[in-house]
Amino acid sequence: MTKFEYTTIENFMLTKMKDSTHDKYHIYRVLNIAMDIAKYEPSVDMDILTAACLLHDIGRDAQFADPTVCHAKAGAEMAYEFLLSLGWQTEKALHVRDCISAHRFRGDNAPQTIEAQILFDADKLDVTGAIGIARTLVYEGQVGGHIYTMEDGKVSLQSKADDTISFVQEYNHKLKNIHKTLYTARAKEIAAKRQQAAKAFYNALLEEIQYES
Amino acid sequence: MTKFEYTTIENFMLTKMKDSTHDKYHIYRVLNIAMDIAKYEPSVDMDILTAACLLHDIGRDAQFADPTVCHAKAGAEMAYEFLLSLGWQTEKALHVRDCISAHRFRGDNAPQTIEAQILFDADKLDVTGAIGIARTLVYEGQVGGHIYTMEDGKVSLQSKADDTISFVQEYNHKLKNIHKTLYTARAKEIAAKRQQAAKAFYNALLEEIQYES
Repeated sequence: MTKFEYTTIENFMLTKMKDSTHDKYHIYRVLNIAMDIAKYEPSVDMDILTAACLLHDIGRDAQFADPTVCHAKAGAEMAYEFLLSLGWQTEKALHVRDCISAHRFRGDNAPQTIEAQILFDADKLDVTGAIGIARTLVYEGQVGGHIYTMEDGKVSLQSKADDTISFVQEYNHKLKNIHKTLYTARAKEIAAKRQQAAKAFYNALLEEIQYES
Repeated sequence: MTKFEYTTIENFMLTKMKDSTHDKYHIYRVLNIAMDIAKYEPSVDMDILTAACLLHDIGRDAQFADPTVCHAKAGAEMAYEFLLSLGWQTEKALHVRDCISAHRFRGDNAPQTIEAQILFDADKLDVTGAIGIARTLVYEGQVGGHIYTMEDGKVSLQSKADDTISFVQEYNHKLKNIHKTLYTARAKEIAAKRQQAAKAFYNALLEEIQYES
């Protein structure tokens, strides 16, 4: 990919990123860590991976406007059309589309190619560690959620339904298990280290909020 | 203080707490840690301290509605009037008023009595450690702030003005120095331990966001 092509795709992405838990820094972190993971895999198409990382969240706005829209599916189509408009071959644009479409895998449409798996892993790594903690807490602030809630004098660790209402519930429901969903060996290695930082923070938080005088 | 009187003051407080970084759990944490600090001080009026802790943030709503209002001053007056309505002696109600008025000390009106100093310390301890990190990140989400920002390819650690725009700036501007403002020995001891958890999180976060592939 030429510098000019990278900048063109980057600028298109920048016009789309407004949410502060999925802002441009999220994109750069995902791209950065995807490049790292790629070094440990034998055969990766770096143009596909770079374009997929830069464009993977451009459908967020559409999902905000209409929560029934899946940002992965919407973004995949937007990226496909955009890359065709840059003169990309249909086959390559379709490959990027598939990577983006599968990055939010929840049950079906699992990432199949190595590029799709690297994007998936890099995106998931951004919900591990201290950055995962930070993003989740900022999100709770955005949606009027809580750090924790209590029931019968005890901190509620689990949510009764799938819709968590606190950081503590979200940590137990999702964050602490993220590393189990990863595909690549390098991502698992990075996640193992990051989970320690996240766990240390969570344990310190629980100790402070359950402090007995 | 009788159980009935405690519940009456608590219920009044509960009608006033709506903000999720200064919600009822913040009040209970402050009260809890104030009770702990009080054990290490020779002579504390526990009725004054309990009422001051429960009521210290009831002026937040007034400050949200009009940012020129100081929630400490407004809350102090509200608490004074409320305690008089419960039949408290003027002298005691004035003492609680002074504790609340001084809990946001920034330059003048320093907390003078031991009860005022304990409330001040307990409130400040809730911005230390993991809970301080969590509350600051939720606040950034509420006000549309960021986890960090970058300038010339580097993370901005300091803000140029007093108005920080990111968690990273707020940590360096305020959070990491909170322990220096405390009055009581017990609070300093608790803060020293908590600062370790906060620092570990901050360092892990910086390492992750500055990760070089």
